[in-house]
Amino acid sequence: MNEFELNSRLLEESTFVTKLTLSQVRLNHDSRFPWLILIPEIAGLKELHEIPEEQQTIVHKEMIFCSTVLQKFTSADKMNVAALGNLVPQLHIHVIARKHNDSAWPQPVWSAGDAKPYEKESLVKLADDLRNRLSS
Amino acid sequence: MNEFELNSRLLEESTFVTKLTLSQVRLNHDSRFPWLILIPEIAGLKELHEIPEEQQTIVHKEMIFCSTVLQKFTSADKMNVAALGNLVPQLHIHVIARKHNDSAWPQPVWSAGDAKPYEKESLVKLADDLRNRLSS
Repeated sequence: MNEFELNSRLLEESTFVTKLTLSQVRLNHDSRFPWLILIPEIAGLKELHEIPEEQQTIVHKEMIFCSTVLQKFTSADKMNVAALGNLVPQLHIHVIARKHNDSAWPQPVWSAGDAKPYEKESLVKLADDLRNRLSS
Repeated sequence: MNEFELNSRLLEESTFVTKLTLSQVRLNHDSRFPWLILIPEIAGLKELHEIPEEQQTIVHKEMIFCSTVLQKFTSADKMNVAALGNLVPQLHIHVIARKHNDSAWPQPVWSAGDAKPYEKESLVKLADDLRNRLSS
């Protein structure tokens, strides 16, 4: 069995937040939307339905947990949860906090043009805050 | 407790395929992409994480089941699974079969402009075929 290795684009375009039982949680580098990415650390996965059956519930609970925590933390009007993977083949799950006044609303974030990077300090602080929320 | 009633836009823009344990499965009226929509028949839900805990696993399994069946049925290159709900507030889960040569690839389908309706006969046949696959 191959070892899990994080896809290079996910590594570059997001910052590590925490590790849950199966998924690594990362903060996407786009300050327009509070946006977590969950990557189940199982080698070779492309599709949600390829997660081994005994681990499906764990990943699902992690996704639900992140969505609950991020909505509460950001007072989001709506959560967007998605596993797409058309560009980055490694299975990853987007958990995105949306507001009625964000720059893409009501369209999905992927229609909204280029990411707007965080200032370094804001990125570190937000990742720390989220780590605290997701670890408690 | 209020009774579940299907959102009028979902009713109009998709065709009933089958009922699983909790979710109604519908076929979206866009012939560009084989596209199922699952709606858990629980009143008042907007977010995945609002599904009552004892029913979370059921909905997750239904989503995984539909993704597996639709990928096999369409020989899709990639499945896109998403709960967005920015325009239609009632919780619904998109399960979309993508091909490397479809008209939106590699972008998400929501960036791809207007839906292209099915011919009536094709719609009925596809819904029947999918019903058979999802019922066996």
